[in-house]
Amino acid sequence: MPHFNPLVERLTPPPVPSVLAWAKAYDGAKGPLIDLSQAVPGYPAHPEMLKWLGEAAASPAYAGYGAIEGEAELRQAYAEHVSTLYGAPVTAASIHITSGCNQAFTAAAMAIAGAGDTVVMTNPYYFNQETTLAMLGINVELVPCDAGAGFLPEIETIASAVRPGVRALALVSPNNPTGAVYPPDLIRRIYEICRGAGTWLILDETYRDFLPDAAAAPHSLLQAKGWEEGFIGLYSFSKSFCIPGHRLGAITAGPALIAQVTKVMDNLQICPPRAAQAAVARALPALTDWRLGNRAEIAARARALETVMGRLPQWNLKAIGAYFAYIRHPFPDIDSQFVAEKLAKLAGILCLSGDSFGEGQESYLRFAFANADVPTIQKLEERLSGFALPGI
Amino acid sequence: MPHFNPLVERLTPPPVPSVLAWAKAYDGAKGPLIDLSQAVPGYPAHPEMLKWLGEAAASPAYAGYGAIEGEAELRQAYAEHVSTLYGAPVTAASIHITSGCNQAFTAAAMAIAGAGDTVVMTNPYYFNQETTLAMLGINVELVPCDAGAGFLPEIETIASAVRPGVRALALVSPNNPTGAVYPPDLIRRIYEICRGAGTWLILDETYRDFLPDAAAAPHSLLQAKGWEEGFIGLYSFSKSFCIPGHRLGAITAGPALIAQVTKVMDNLQICPPRAAQAAVARALPALTDWRLGNRAEIAARARALETVMGRLPQWNLKAIGAYFAYIRHPFPDIDSQFVAEKLAKLAGILCLSGDSFGEGQESYLRFAFANADVPTIQKLEERLSGFALPGI
Ligand SMILES: Cc1ncc(COP(=O)(O)O)c(C=O)c1O
Ligand SMILES: Cc1ncc(COP(=O)(O)O)c(C=O)c1O
Repeated sequence: MPHFNPLVERLTPPPVPSVLAWAKAYDGAKGPLIDLSQAVPGYPAHPEMLKWLGEAAASPAYAGYGAIEGEAELRQAYAEHVSTLYGAPVTAASIHITSGCNQAFTAAAMAIAGAGDTVVMTNPYYFNQETTLAMLGINVELVPCDAGAGFLPEIETIASAVRPGVRALALVSPNNPTGAVYPPDLIRRIYEICRGAGTWLILDETYRDFLPDAAAAPHSLLQAKGWEEGFIGLYSFSKSFCIPGHRLGAITAGPALIAQVTKVMDNLQICPPRAAQAAVARALPALTDWRLGNRAEIAARARALETVMGRLPQWNLKAIGAYFAYIRHPFPDIDSQFVAEKLAKLAGILCLSGDSFGEGQESYLRFAFANADVPTIQKLEERLSGFALPGI
Repeated sequence: MPHFNPLVERLTPPPVPSVLAWAKAYDGAKGPLIDLSQAVPGYPAHPEMLKWLGEAAASPAYAGYGAIEGEAELRQAYAEHVSTLYGAPVTAASIHITSGCNQAFTAAAMAIAGAGDTVVMTNPYYFNQETTLAMLGINVELVPCDAGAGFLPEIETIASAVRPGVRALALVSPNNPTGAVYPPDLIRRIYEICRGAGTWLILDETYRDFLPDAAAAPHSLLQAKGWEEGFIGLYSFSKSFCIPGHRLGAITAGPALIAQVTKVMDNLQICPPRAAQAAVARALPALTDWRLGNRAEIAARARALETVMGRLPQWNLKAIGAYFAYIRHPFPDIDSQFVAEKLAKLAGILCLSGDSFGEGQESYLRFAFANADVPTIQKLEERLSGFALPGI
């Protein structure tokens, strides 16, 4: 057989499909499966959202090829949303729509780095960012984030990792997997370090709509003069609108970077799927209240999980944020991959193991608690307190 | 400003948007614009297709994340279609759905080659294949295809270009830009050369549904024993179903390659847009007759263009095939980019210049004749015969 690309061959297969296989092996003994694995909201999309999606998809107006950068109406609507949220004027020229935030990251990374370049990430990390860089031959250097510091990166560690020549620092806040929310101040100081080193700051804010305070800007970078020359913001419409199957995300960046991303995106897929863009352009202003309601609901789920975990001290809740909790399991010498598999098969609790998210994470489990409603989260107490590993 | 990726910076911007800008500059003096630029069918999608797209998009069933490889129903329906067309059993395990055929090419290329590897293509080429490889740092070597040979590659030239170590040979048949249709025999011989060298053969068959003979298999490779270890077939649902805005394509390859592509695709976008997949799974068997009708219509358009060009000997029709005609313009020392711009602005004829498609193509223009109906094509006669370059 001819060769594969060794950089791709070397990648471990994506974790989510194998977790779904564990789910199938659960016999239901403890009650219905509790799925805390993939980060998908546990409630459906708004009925109007589905109606608009259907209308746009049935329309001949969106059947043809569209603009590479995205539909003008969605770029405009999203620019207005971003401007309001961050209290800073951002125009449609600074927006590039993509097929989801994974693609936003891939396109941004390709626009600024190639094989042999270096990008700094945190450890633990969102695995697709790491595998994307690895398959492109981009060197990844990891900055550790410790449980003791709430999994926030330390400014000194960032300052010594981000040095001239490093193409980008990639961060995720609110964080996946830990849930850690980076304070605006910290983000600003990190940004200044990046500016000083001539390094792009890529910030993935897929979960920002689930921050408890809707009124507070997640950071102040878009207010900084010349932000276009240092900041790249990534976002996903998947979680906030409950439409991951429609694949939409966005890049916020200066027009010079957008022009490079456009060349990449033309190669990757010519244009994002059009009908869903038209629907989201309508939903963005129209479903504000619905999204506020979800924000409150997710916050209630976080509190419910904190309460449950407070009663289970062996399961150590190390961090919890917008969408995720990061939990130290009670089996010191056992790999979290094994624990997660047994939790799925024996207790019907589906979660991801820490070692999917980086080095030295084998004591951790990631609970995507936003997937489950409060009564379901409360059922975790019985299942976790009664859980034992077979033969241990 | 921090650096961009020089491999991306160096890419020329995509040609289609600048052509659309020329169109805007046309004042309508010669009648309505005749758009032969982008390869999009000049008739709308089938009403049932639009209905199914709308139904699926409005359904909560397709709002969540889907399988990376694509919806089971579309993989199955497409596998059956491929099996019938090529007279060879192909299963769903050999199918990976993508967001269009550009993405199919990108994902396939990434699965088998990385920066510093070599891939062979023809000259002229489909520009996105070239820019995709270039941005990935993959070396492109070009095999010339001469007008004298109907723009078919010569077997000796292929044999000397495809040598051990070359990761892939990328071909397009029916060809974009020339329209050349590679005979099954030639494809088979090229495949044997690739097998001998341990080189993947990537064949983009985006336009195969517009070959004049619906009953004839475009090639016999899927009947070859062990084809999974040498062949990668690419396809687009954009043209055949008139739905490029919904972004769907497919890869046909052995399960081992599909497994590598799956890792790439998880990074690139997690899964293809789901609702459109469900709709196309219905359309693939149901709209067979409609597609046969279109095939006949496009063949009639080809004949109309041949008739027109027969009366315009200064405009030398060098090749014509399923979707495209490749025409030598009558201005020996003038670059086709300039000719195309003037044709757009002065004569209202929109086409792409040969130099978008490779080296030494500055005498050629690509007419995507499938975009225009027969009466429109007939209007080309008056416009082209009366056309003169200003000041020449
Ligand atoms: C941090 C982060 N970024 C990006 C994504 C991908 O989102 P999308 O569905 O928009 O591709 C996810 C999805 O889980 C995520 O957790
Ligand atoms: C040869 C060829 N391959 C691939 C594509 C891309 O098609 P899709 O819309 O499926 O990405 C085109 C579109 O023009 C093409 O001409």
